[in-house]
Amino acid sequence: MNTGMTDIRTYILQLGQEARAASRVIGAAPTATKSAALLAMGDTLDRSREMLKAANALDMEAAGKNGIDQPLIDRLGLDDRVIDRMIEGLHQVDKLPDPVGEVTDLVYRPSGIQVGRMRVPLGVIGIIYESRPNVTVEAASLCLKSGNACILRGGSEAFHSNQAISGCIAQGLSAAGLPDAVVRQLNTTDRAAVGELVTLDEYVDVIVPRGGKGLIERISRESSIPVIKHLDGVCHVFIDNAADMDMAISIAVNSKTEKYAVCNAMETLLVAEGIAAEILPLLAERFDQAGVELRGCEKTRALVPAAIQASEADWYEEYLGPILAVRVVGGLEEAIAHINRYGSQHTDAIVSTDYGRTRRFVSEVDSASVLVNASTQFADGFEYGLGAEIGISTDKLHARGPVGLEGLTTQKYVVYGSGEIRRR
Amino acid sequence: MNTGMTDIRTYILQLGQEARAASRVIGAAPTATKSAALLAMGDTLDRSREMLKAANALDMEAAGKNGIDQPLIDRLGLDDRVIDRMIEGLHQVDKLPDPVGEVTDLVYRPSGIQVGRMRVPLGVIGIIYESRPNVTVEAASLCLKSGNACILRGGSEAFHSNQAISGCIAQGLSAAGLPDAVVRQLNTTDRAAVGELVTLDEYVDVIVPRGGKGLIERISRESSIPVIKHLDGVCHVFIDNAADMDMAISIAVNSKTEKYAVCNAMETLLVAEGIAAEILPLLAERFDQAGVELRGCEKTRALVPAAIQASEADWYEEYLGPILAVRVVGGLEEAIAHINRYGSQHTDAIVSTDYGRTRRFVSEVDSASVLVNASTQFADGFEYGLGAEIGISTDKLHARGPVGLEGLTTQKYVVYGSGEIRRR
Repeated sequence: MNTGMTDIRTYILQLGQEARAASRVIGAAPTATKSAALLAMGDTLDRSREMLKAANALDMEAAGKNGIDQPLIDRLGLDDRVIDRMIEGLHQVDKLPDPVGEVTDLVYRPSGIQVGRMRVPLGVIGIIYESRPNVTVEAASLCLKSGNACILRGGSEAFHSNQAISGCIAQGLSAAGLPDAVVRQLNTTDRAAVGELVTLDEYVDVIVPRGGKGLIERISRESSIPVIKHLDGVCHVFIDNAADMDMAISIAVNSKTEKYAVCNAMETLLVAEGIAAEILPLLAERFDQAGVELRGCEKTRALVPAAIQASEADWYEEYLGPILAVRVVGGLEEAIAHINRYGSQHTDAIVSTDYGRTRRFVSEVDSASVLVNASTQFADGFEYGLGAEIGISTDKLHARGPVGLEGLTTQKYVVYGSGEIRRR
Repeated sequence: MNTGMTDIRTYILQLGQEARAASRVIGAAPTATKSAALLAMGDTLDRSREMLKAANALDMEAAGKNGIDQPLIDRLGLDDRVIDRMIEGLHQVDKLPDPVGEVTDLVYRPSGIQVGRMRVPLGVIGIIYESRPNVTVEAASLCLKSGNACILRGGSEAFHSNQAISGCIAQGLSAAGLPDAVVRQLNTTDRAAVGELVTLDEYVDVIVPRGGKGLIERISRESSIPVIKHLDGVCHVFIDNAADMDMAISIAVNSKTEKYAVCNAMETLLVAEGIAAEILPLLAERFDQAGVELRGCEKTRALVPAAIQASEADWYEEYLGPILAVRVVGGLEEAIAHINRYGSQHTDAIVSTDYGRTRRFVSEVDSASVLVNASTQFADGFEYGLGAEIGISTDKLHARGPVGLEGLTTQKYVVYGSGEIRRR
């Protein structure tokens, strides 16, 4: 008999049922109540700094003992600066417009009924994430503001920090008269709990995994609930024959080097052959100064002898570091074909002064973000004006690209009549 | 060695690859080209009436031999009237506005970039359907107009009819200079082909099953591709204490009896107890005249002795016939709780003259369509003004409620810059 497993199943089932009930409350809660909860959460975090730091110290100590590597430990830290940012994040989410209840396209139909669409919460959202404990506050605040209940499962390495933060969130909910089941953090790091959560179809409406590719692929495979996925960013910049030289260099360099380890960083540079001889040596110099290794096709290497020979695998690669694949292409058509074949439909840019070719690029590149004469690094929820971001979706259905509050909602049809009946 | 299985896998894989390539062509095709294809398909159907009827005769003969029941045989028939309707359907889809390429919310951001959202096709759509051969034309035309390639798999009982119709569709595509892989009908009725199709993640973006609950549940279970589902319609009408009596009777009767076998027909009537004694006997008389059997709760049976005792299972039932479950509820809260518990989140209506209660009903009933003072039978794409309908989604993500052309598209972000780079 596996008592542990039965216990976990019962526990998750109960969480799900309570979250469903709480989702009815938060879904109908007025903006002012949600605002009160967000601000009370911030106040509670502010008052609980010592407790939060003490809990985080337990995680940091365990991380040290377990030999977790330094970048992960850096992201795990919860000092006053991180707490300040969490509180500031809550205030920012509070200031965003409430998406719930907005009715659009309300029009009279020939039958006399008036039909529109109302934005409504998804219901219950399961969020599974790694490492950084401040994600707890981000995820909870976005779900709350969009009228959803959520079940959070933070990484085991941040267990104590997440429990402490979730305690503050519960106090904030309570201060606003909301049930604490609106936001619940799993009280176990048992992996079996994740398996139960992602198959709780009846009580959970969507799963959002946040973390590395391994986590996201595993969750997508196991889940019987729709998953908002955020997979690779194999992003391209295409420099057209008609590009402005200075602009092309500036955008290519920024797209790669502004930050390396982000999903919207350029990973492959495509250069039209008419401009390649002129621009590639200049670009190579800039990338060399920045310490970026180039991996080029034959034509690239003829112009930039220092470039390493690129293999077929390089065109699929998300380096997330100072390496760049470079390919000389015949022109627009070949660039679009390359992007649609090797890219990950995340973010791709063209640099060109040609009206017709920019127009075709925008229409024919099948990616979540398509940019003209701007750096790929702009592809993010804040830069796009969503106010906040729970992730960048590489799915096509529902939410595509940066996902903000709107991506955590759906629309239902509302019909206002005055006694109309249907005659077929 | 299973050669048949290998052949089917190879066949479906090839269809998928060709459909993906064709989706790039149709996705970028101008409105005029799509229009030419739709009209040419209509012309070809019109010229091919004898061929279509001969093919259909083979299916009808087989159906007779296989002892298929009469309602199914009725839906299988392809006479001049049905052909006329298919042609008319093509003309209607042609007249709908082209959804592809529409850019909304294009605004300047503080960084200088201009960000908007462009409506784009999903890519390749797999449609698996039963019986009625005219679905072939409906599905193909909606996918084409929304810029998608599609792979169709009609029911085996309509095999010859579907092949003949698909031949006409191919001629229409060809007349407009489009590749025939934009619309492909499987040339086999082997069920294994469906299994291959719904796991062809790389080449198919979404699966739309159209048919009975069994088909939809099976496809949803087997598919590794997102499915736009259309499950039960357990629809409710709630008659509030403050309802106009005549309006309430008219809406309740129409919601049930205008058509029985439709997903938007009322299956459970909820009556507030303050109005039950007055209205239930009148309603019972009307339903008796219409031949509708009533299954009531205790309170209903006290007022309508002819009603059969309802069991717990009745509240979950989609009768799709002349049976109606009836329950007396304390008031609005109990009605909403009943609907959210037993309903299928499809379509629910309130009849009331009370401002506050209609407002709460609209906000708190978690269904794809929520109606005030109108018949549930209005919940359909044509009545809502979508112009056409590929189904009614009971999912929450992506498309909810009647799915028209917009549900077959998605949005990508487009960014127009003038050399902007990001500085973090």
